[in-house]
Amino acid sequence: MPSEFELIARHFAGPTPGAVLGPGDDCALLQPSPGMELAVTTDMLVAGVHFLPDTDPEGLGWKTLAVNLSDLAAMGAKPRWVLLAGSLPEADEAWLAAFAKGFFTLAKASKVDVVGGDTTRGPLNLCVTAMGEVAPGQALRRDGAQPGNDLWVSGQPGLAALGLAQLQGRIQLPEALVQRCVTALQRPRPRVALGLALVQRQLATAAIDISDGLLADVAHIAERSGVELRINVGQLPLLPKGVDPVLAQRCQLAGGDDYELAFTAPVAQRMALAALAADLELPLWRIGYVAEGGEGTDKAQKAGQVSLYDGDGAPLPPEFMDQFKGYDHFRAT
Amino acid sequence: MPSEFELIARHFAGPTPGAVLGPGDDCALLQPSPGMELAVTTDMLVAGVHFLPDTDPEGLGWKTLAVNLSDLAAMGAKPRWVLLAGSLPEADEAWLAAFAKGFFTLAKASKVDVVGGDTTRGPLNLCVTAMGEVAPGQALRRDGAQPGNDLWVSGQPGLAALGLAQLQGRIQLPEALVQRCVTALQRPRPRVALGLALVQRQLATAAIDISDGLLADVAHIAERSGVELRINVGQLPLLPKGVDPVLAQRCQLAGGDDYELAFTAPVAQRMALAALAADLELPLWRIGYVAEGGEGTDKAQKAGQVSLYDGDGAPLPPEFMDQFKGYDHFRAT
Repeated sequence: MPSEFELIARHFAGPTPGAVLGPGDDCALLQPSPGMELAVTTDMLVAGVHFLPDTDPEGLGWKTLAVNLSDLAAMGAKPRWVLLAGSLPEADEAWLAAFAKGFFTLAKASKVDVVGGDTTRGPLNLCVTAMGEVAPGQALRRDGAQPGNDLWVSGQPGLAALGLAQLQGRIQLPEALVQRCVTALQRPRPRVALGLALVQRQLATAAIDISDGLLADVAHIAERSGVELRINVGQLPLLPKGVDPVLAQRCQLAGGDDYELAFTAPVAQRMALAALAADLELPLWRIGYVAEGGEGTDKAQKAGQVSLYDGDGAPLPPEFMDQFKGYDHFRAT
Repeated sequence: MPSEFELIARHFAGPTPGAVLGPGDDCALLQPSPGMELAVTTDMLVAGVHFLPDTDPEGLGWKTLAVNLSDLAAMGAKPRWVLLAGSLPEADEAWLAAFAKGFFTLAKASKVDVVGGDTTRGPLNLCVTAMGEVAPGQALRRDGAQPGNDLWVSGQPGLAALGLAQLQGRIQLPEALVQRCVTALQRPRPRVALGLALVQRQLATAAIDISDGLLADVAHIAERSGVELRINVGQLPLLPKGVDPVLAQRCQLAGGDDYELAFTAPVAQRMALAALAADLELPLWRIGYVAEGGEGTDKAQKAGQVSLYDGDGAPLPPEFMDQFKGYDHFRAT
C-alpha cells in the first residue's frame, strides 16, 4: 500500500506559482500583496452530515473547495491560496484521484494555489482553509447594512435544495430541470466575480453567501448590522417552471447549499447593479430593503429580524415564517 | 439545547486585537506586516488516531494548537493567527468549555488570535490552521542542509512516547518521571522561541519539528536537501534515569509527539548555539552531521538517507535502524 507521503505527492502536489514555497515543508510560505488585507476562512465537511458517504468523489472535490471560495466571494476577496486537510477511512487511491481532479479543476479555474495540507486516517472529513486578498477597508462585511438600502440576491436560490430532493427520490422534477438542479447542488459556482465587482465598483454595504438558506443567512446581516430586513416575496426570483410552487418557494427561502450572494446596496446603485448583472450575465434580484425601523422599543425589537411581506406590501403572518428554519448543525431538527 | 452559533459565541469568541475582523463574518480579515512572508500550516487531529476519545479535553485543546504552533516554530515564524474547525459527536458544553480553556490558554501565552473557525456535528475531529510571519527568505526550510553542517536537536525527545506507554499501562516509570513524561505528551511546549532565535541570529540552514519521531522527521531534511545525515548515538541526549535504556533509546529515536526541533547549522555556529541554549534555558544537543557523501553513485544512493553510528564512529548495522519506523497514517503497522 502506498504511504501517506506517496499518496499526497501523487495527487495533491500541483504547481504553486503564486506561493514562495508550496507543500512539503512544515509550512507553506506566501508573499501577500503589499498593503492588501487577507481574508481567511475555514470550512469542514463531514460525511453523513454535509454529503452522503457514497457521493461522487470528483463532485465532492469541487464542492469542498467551492464552499470556501464562496466565503471569499462573500467578502469580495480575490482567492489566492488554499490548504486542504482530510481524514479518510482508507487509502483508496481511485477515490483520492477523483477527489483531487474535482478539487484541482476548480482551483485552476479560480487561479488559487493548493499550498499545503494534511492527510490522516479516520472517518471521512474534509477541511479547507482558503485565503484571499481585498483592499483595506473594502471587504463586504455583514455589519454594514444601512436603513434604506435595498436587499439583493444573485442567481436562482433553491435549485440546490430541489436537486437534493430529486436525488433522494422525494420529488420528480421535470426532465429539463433535473440536470440544472443537480449541477447547482454538486458543482456550485462560487460568485467570486460578483464579489470582486461589488468591491471594485463600491456598490454594496454588506454581503453574505447563502449556504444555510436565504432567510437564515440574511438574518446574520440583520443581526450584525442591527437592522430589520424586509423581504417582499413578490420580488423573489421567478420560480422554475414545472415545480410545485409551494415547494419551490420553500426551497428558495430556506434551501441550503446554493452559494449565491445576498447583499445590501444603496438605492442610488440600482442602475449600476443592473449594468453589473448584464456584464456578469448573472441575474441580480432586488428582493427587499433594510427597514428604518419603528420608534424606540419597536425599533430595538425588530433589529436583527427578517420579516416577509406579500406582493402588496402587507406583512405575512409569523406562522408563514416559522416553516422556514435554517440549518443548524447542533440543533435537533 | 444551545444552537451552534450560541455555542461558538460562548466559548470561542475571545478578543482578537491582532486582527482587522475576528470571528462572525464570512471570513476573518487580517493585515499582514509589510514585507513579511506568511508561513501557513494546517493539521488535523482525529479521535482514535491521534488521541484517545476520552482524552482530557483541556489538554486536548492545548495540544491541538501546540502541534500547529510547532510547525510555525520549525519555520522560524512568529505565530500571529489561527483558525479552528471541529466536528463533534454532540454539543457537550462542559467538554467544549474545557477544550476552549486549553486552546485559549496556549493561544494567549503565544500571543496568537483565534480569528475564525467552523463547528459541525460528526465524529470527533479537530483541524487547526495557523499563520505566522517571517522575514522574506529567512524561513527555516527543510531543503537547506549543507554537507559539513552539524545536526542538532532540542530538549529531550522521547519523553512523550514514554508518557504514552505509562498512560497505557505498558511500562511503569519511576515516580519522579511520570509527571514530566505525561506533561511532555499532553502539554507539549512548541519551540517558538527557539525557531525565532534561529532565524534572528541566522544560525540554522534547515529545520523540522519532531512529530513522528526523530529518525523519521530528520529523514525529511535529508530527502529535501539531497544529503545524507549521520547521527552518532553516543551524542544523543542523555537518557532519563530509571528507564530501561533500550526502551528509552527507542523512544528517543522513534517516539512521536515530542515537538522538539531538529536543525542543521554550520560548524562555525557551535559557540553561538551554546549561547542560545543558555539564553533559552533549553538544552541543544549536537547529535551528528550532514555527510559530504561518497563519490558518484554512492553519493547519490546515500542522498536522502539517515545513518546511525556508534560512539566510536562505526556504522551501526541496518538491522539496528529497521526497528525504528516513523508513523505513517496510511501504512498498516
